[in-house]
Amino acid sequence: MSKFWSPFVKNLVPYVPGEQPKLTKLVKLNTNENPYGPSPKAIAAMQAELGDALRLYPDPNGERLKQAVAAFHGVRAEQVFVGNGSDEVLAHAFYGLFQHDQPLLFPDISYSFYPVYCGLYGIDYRTVPLDDAFQIRIEDYAQPNGGIVFPNPNAPTGCLLGLDAIEQLLGANPDSVVLVDEAYIDFGGVSAVSLVDRYPNLLVCQTLSKSRSLAGLRVGLAIGHPQLIEALERIKNSFNSYPLDRIAIAGAAAAFEDQAYFEQTCAAVIDSREKLVGELKGLGFEVLPSAANFVFARHPQRDAAQLAAGVREQGVIVRHFTAPRIAQFLRISIGTPEQNAALIEALSGLGLPQA
Amino acid sequence: MSKFWSPFVKNLVPYVPGEQPKLTKLVKLNTNENPYGPSPKAIAAMQAELGDALRLYPDPNGERLKQAVAAFHGVRAEQVFVGNGSDEVLAHAFYGLFQHDQPLLFPDISYSFYPVYCGLYGIDYRTVPLDDAFQIRIEDYAQPNGGIVFPNPNAPTGCLLGLDAIEQLLGANPDSVVLVDEAYIDFGGVSAVSLVDRYPNLLVCQTLSKSRSLAGLRVGLAIGHPQLIEALERIKNSFNSYPLDRIAIAGAAAAFEDQAYFEQTCAAVIDSREKLVGELKGLGFEVLPSAANFVFARHPQRDAAQLAAGVREQGVIVRHFTAPRIAQFLRISIGTPEQNAALIEALSGLGLPQA
Repeated sequence: MSKFWSPFVKNLVPYVPGEQPKLTKLVKLNTNENPYGPSPKAIAAMQAELGDALRLYPDPNGERLKQAVAAFHGVRAEQVFVGNGSDEVLAHAFYGLFQHDQPLLFPDISYSFYPVYCGLYGIDYRTVPLDDAFQIRIEDYAQPNGGIVFPNPNAPTGCLLGLDAIEQLLGANPDSVVLVDEAYIDFGGVSAVSLVDRYPNLLVCQTLSKSRSLAGLRVGLAIGHPQLIEALERIKNSFNSYPLDRIAIAGAAAAFEDQAYFEQTCAAVIDSREKLVGELKGLGFEVLPSAANFVFARHPQRDAAQLAAGVREQGVIVRHFTAPRIAQFLRISIGTPEQNAALIEALSGLGLPQA
Repeated sequence: MSKFWSPFVKNLVPYVPGEQPKLTKLVKLNTNENPYGPSPKAIAAMQAELGDALRLYPDPNGERLKQAVAAFHGVRAEQVFVGNGSDEVLAHAFYGLFQHDQPLLFPDISYSFYPVYCGLYGIDYRTVPLDDAFQIRIEDYAQPNGGIVFPNPNAPTGCLLGLDAIEQLLGANPDSVVLVDEAYIDFGGVSAVSLVDRYPNLLVCQTLSKSRSLAGLRVGLAIGHPQLIEALERIKNSFNSYPLDRIAIAGAAAAFEDQAYFEQTCAAVIDSREKLVGELKGLGFEVLPSAANFVFARHPQRDAAQLAAGVREQGVIVRHFTAPRIAQFLRISIGTPEQNAALIEALSGLGLPQA
């Protein structure tokens, strides 16, 4: 603590991202990155930006990227907001849309950045417990609120909420923004973007870090009614005029334009996930149904922290959260078939009893 | 306005950046970009990042860049904060260090983003008039305050405040953070970084957008006491874990390492500025003494808005602000010798009376 700090800084509890190890030999299944590289067309588009034009500011509106996103999703560019990763987009959405008298609602087991944003912007919130099967039960959200946010599929569970349930939630909360955080939607879910024209209270957030293999480029987006987008633009333009650099705008736009590569790599991840789920179950794990590029699994006979440490000693990193209810789960990102095999081998090496 | 917005959004007045025209044939002297491209070594470093590794998140701490900045400035990495352009760094500094009971002080004529940050974060502020020669007079800051911020050289005037004056200000305000925003320091000023070890209340902010020709890459930084840096880190880590992408970290670090290119291009800009000042004076302009990569000039017989429109019709863009006291000035970025000649020709074409 320092006398120079604004008072709220003292109580700020920052988010802790998953480890980015310096050792490249590790099999890294801890931060839900895509095991495949980005589209070669995205790389080529970034390549074309490397030159003297970097002396010039980027387009502050990222128009080229908004157009590409709009074309992909069949919406208008004015329904699209772009930012420096979905974390920045979420931050602006929390500040611009959730600072109300009633508390924001989100699941008790969810993206652990949500309470951090609330701390940053003085937003009152209430967590709503997942049911015993770790599913979102929308009846539980029938309470006064200043907004609702959840990942879909949820993180770190991987469980999907159907569009019909989301529509019920939107209809039941016409005075609140419902933010559907679709970081993982492309690995098995159906996007709520199809609902934005009918529900002015729906904001859908996506990222290029997962299904478009560009975690290293920092691009995220939101889609919704132009009035919701305007709130985000106002905040963005009062914070940083150019959060996306020239290379990021070009690479992200090209990634959205390369639909074939996107579909092929998503399909490969989904295939690998299904195979991995079978193998984990073969080792005795209970695995929640996943529509994401990770699985959330627990072993009835073995401590999760010890398992995480055990595979780490064999060069495989998975993520373990110590939060209540989920302290016995491991969150395992889907790797290449070779990486997944390395994980299974490492787990087998720990002498797991078979199911 | 929308019922979904957080109430403060309604009154937010965003910053308006200088125009980024789509026509590349224009001579663009309106946003203080460097007329020379970035270091070839920076380009090469970015090139090396274009590949499959973009699927992985960047180092959230940007350690490689912090090391390069620390080495250049002769400080420790823990005294360095890095962010997505100095605009983001300033935003975090305003929120983390200036939300106090007493008002923040800054010059009446200054970077027009400062009051915008105050609006975004509910920071009370008071502007302190520059003197009649458009200089900062530090005696005028002897009043209760929760912080002091000013660009040095000031923008849009280009006028420099000496280190001795800054040191007086630091000594006179031991309980307030003094943020020296050195976006333009490398074009003729002496950085206050040399003072950070002696003044725990000093935060120096810099950008790679000007003297390092990387406006298109979005990298800025702050240097100060580790306790001030911690406030920025807490906010950054409660907002967006990875504001700098892999390419930006690599390119910015390499730019800091290529001191020869940096010195050579800064010297070229300074040479061009001195020549341009002479030519503008030859056309009858009054030019404020500039230590930046732009000049601030007014013509006693001609309206500034008309001059800006007149050169624009001839394909040259300069910046004109409508704010009180400076509405008769033009802010002209220093271009290449050819670009500066195009400006002088365009001005001459407007039939300016000679001095």
